[in-house]
Amino acid sequence: MEYVFSDKLKSLKPSAIREILKATACPGIIPFAAGNPCAEAFPVKELSEISKEIFEISPIEALQYGVTEGYEPLRETVFKMMKSAGTLKGDNDTVIITSGAQQVMDLAAKSLCNEGDTVLCESPSFIGSLNCFRANGCRLAGVPLESDGMDVQALENALKKERNVRFIYTIPNFQNPSGATMSLEKRKAVYELAEKYNVMIVEDNPYGDLRVEGEHVNSIKSLDRSGRVIYAGSFSKILSPGLRVGFAAADRDVIAKMTVCKQTEDVHTPVLSQMLVSKWLCERSPEKHIEKIRGIYRKKLSLMCDLIDEKLSEKFTYVRPEGGLFVWCALPKEIDMPYFCRSALEKGVAVVPGSAFLVNPNDKTGCIRLNFSTPSDEQIIKGITELSSLF
Amino acid sequence: MEYVFSDKLKSLKPSAIREILKATACPGIIPFAAGNPCAEAFPVKELSEISKEIFEISPIEALQYGVTEGYEPLRETVFKMMKSAGTLKGDNDTVIITSGAQQVMDLAAKSLCNEGDTVLCESPSFIGSLNCFRANGCRLAGVPLESDGMDVQALENALKKERNVRFIYTIPNFQNPSGATMSLEKRKAVYELAEKYNVMIVEDNPYGDLRVEGEHVNSIKSLDRSGRVIYAGSFSKILSPGLRVGFAAADRDVIAKMTVCKQTEDVHTPVLSQMLVSKWLCERSPEKHIEKIRGIYRKKLSLMCDLIDEKLSEKFTYVRPEGGLFVWCALPKEIDMPYFCRSALEKGVAVVPGSAFLVNPNDKTGCIRLNFSTPSDEQIIKGITELSSLF
Repeated sequence: MEYVFSDKLKSLKPSAIREILKATACPGIIPFAAGNPCAEAFPVKELSEISKEIFEISPIEALQYGVTEGYEPLRETVFKMMKSAGTLKGDNDTVIITSGAQQVMDLAAKSLCNEGDTVLCESPSFIGSLNCFRANGCRLAGVPLESDGMDVQALENALKKERNVRFIYTIPNFQNPSGATMSLEKRKAVYELAEKYNVMIVEDNPYGDLRVEGEHVNSIKSLDRSGRVIYAGSFSKILSPGLRVGFAAADRDVIAKMTVCKQTEDVHTPVLSQMLVSKWLCERSPEKHIEKIRGIYRKKLSLMCDLIDEKLSEKFTYVRPEGGLFVWCALPKEIDMPYFCRSALEKGVAVVPGSAFLVNPNDKTGCIRLNFSTPSDEQIIKGITELSSLF
Repeated sequence: MEYVFSDKLKSLKPSAIREILKATACPGIIPFAAGNPCAEAFPVKELSEISKEIFEISPIEALQYGVTEGYEPLRETVFKMMKSAGTLKGDNDTVIITSGAQQVMDLAAKSLCNEGDTVLCESPSFIGSLNCFRANGCRLAGVPLESDGMDVQALENALKKERNVRFIYTIPNFQNPSGATMSLEKRKAVYELAEKYNVMIVEDNPYGDLRVEGEHVNSIKSLDRSGRVIYAGSFSKILSPGLRVGFAAADRDVIAKMTVCKQTEDVHTPVLSQMLVSKWLCERSPEKHIEKIRGIYRKKLSLMCDLIDEKLSEKFTYVRPEGGLFVWCALPKEIDMPYFCRSALEKGVAVVPGSAFLVNPNDKTGCIRLNFSTPSDEQIIKGITELSSLF
């Protein structure tokens, strides 16, 4: 038969990143296009022990249906963590456990947006979130990103101009793809604009624990007076992405709607995944492990950036990120970016064309995204050398 | 702030079933309202061994990001199972692993429906699917259910009358809540109507392996000539619901769109869950285990139905199901059904009011749904006795 798919999928074109990522899986390709934690970042022994305990002590609980809101001990632990970090201050806040932070974007869009409603996004931004909003029928409007976060004047212009804006989407720490961290001043300004124009904010913070330089900046959620911020957190970068455990923290009226939506999507996040995360947080030493991961990524980030400074300083323009997983590099104006990416792939180096992250696909960019967490040190050295040989 | 939620959530009222299920969790309440596999139905020892192997042999694979389509060995196994069962015949068919069969409903609705498009559903039907379609902005139109499946004439009338029908949703085996199994003649008729009116079919088969009496009936998917059936399967009833592993089998063009949608929802189903299911299917004896579960449920179903025949034959009207998890009972006309459910709960017996399953919430029903898999044999005896004492 001739299939007719929903209109909202039409804006979801098969993405360049998907094709590049397929190439990344080929043996021998240097994976600067990925975003995976490196193998040494997994506490395998601890999770193996915890898994054994779960199957010995409470197997039926792990294998039976759970509640949509999440495994209660994990919800409580996450809530306490958010409280003690100063992220949650409101008496009416609560937490839902989700199937990765990706699901928070989906539940937020489904709960808050009718088809055609607008979401204001940093441009560039994480393609997974942009596609999620598109798949929910949202219109996207881009707000240009500066090295210290959103262009606040452009944000206010968009809030004035765009119709039916439902929320502002931001990744304030070590943004994907740009690596930029929003300054505290801008966080305050963005929050005040959300108040003034009465829209919500979805604050996506998957990389917050991966700071390797500089000072911690308080979350936008910590500034929240009126329950307008949905905070999304993840265990993908500090523990394991394969377990698919994330969470949202927000006002309980908002979480209640997101819970109803989650029930219709996957009923609940796998209990075994949730128990593994919960017991790891409570019975092991997550701070110590995060410190270890920071050490690994500090080294890899320095290695990549020092090599760029050494071999590509006249070609790549970039701001050294203070954490996260990505380095965002602008190519010289005269270079055709898609051609550069194809040439890199022919040389065995997979990088992501920056166009994948644009809010408006008709915009132009001469940037590429490089990931330093997935490749080995040898691959970083070889990969940057290969890229420099392309000029 | 005053929250404004999306219009589509307005049709998702806090359901009676949710409140009843909360009561079910109270200790001492007899859980006829649930739908959980019984504790003896879990192959704990096998899954425990497999989990140990996974953490010994391939921990990084289990903890790292996976691909959206699913863990490849599991996809292949499921595909072969579907082929050898005669369910898949088309050369263009393929499989996606989902986070429970619930996610198939969500991906189908998101891929196929614009807001306001119509889904034709058996009435009554599974509340989780109905709410999923509602949360995707679909209009629902009900087709009355008979003891051998949909009223085919009413289905054709609906196909003629309703605007923008995108698909027919059916649970052909041991339907939830009615327990009805659709006859082969009706499966053929439903398929021919889908051909005639050029709509798709979503065939939801979570209970198919739980037949305890009578003869197997071929799936609607096995009749599919033109790739119009999306088949949804699940490992929740035969292995573990807590692992949240299901799948869809359909034409690869449809699966491709569902894959794009799944990527925006949860990226992929947890790899550990998928590996547990995959290795259990390939390295253990799933047929033997399913035979064991059938034995358990055959006994429980008989116990409940024999007791109803003995104590409630003058009060409850029902058709003894040939499998599944539920018995659907009509109360005498003069009895107020919601009052009966409340009285039962006061007596310590949780049952689900049939109204929860209606496609049109303004319709009336005098039916209740009883589950026999969750309660112990003692609870079944005590519960039916308590219900009979209410008259």
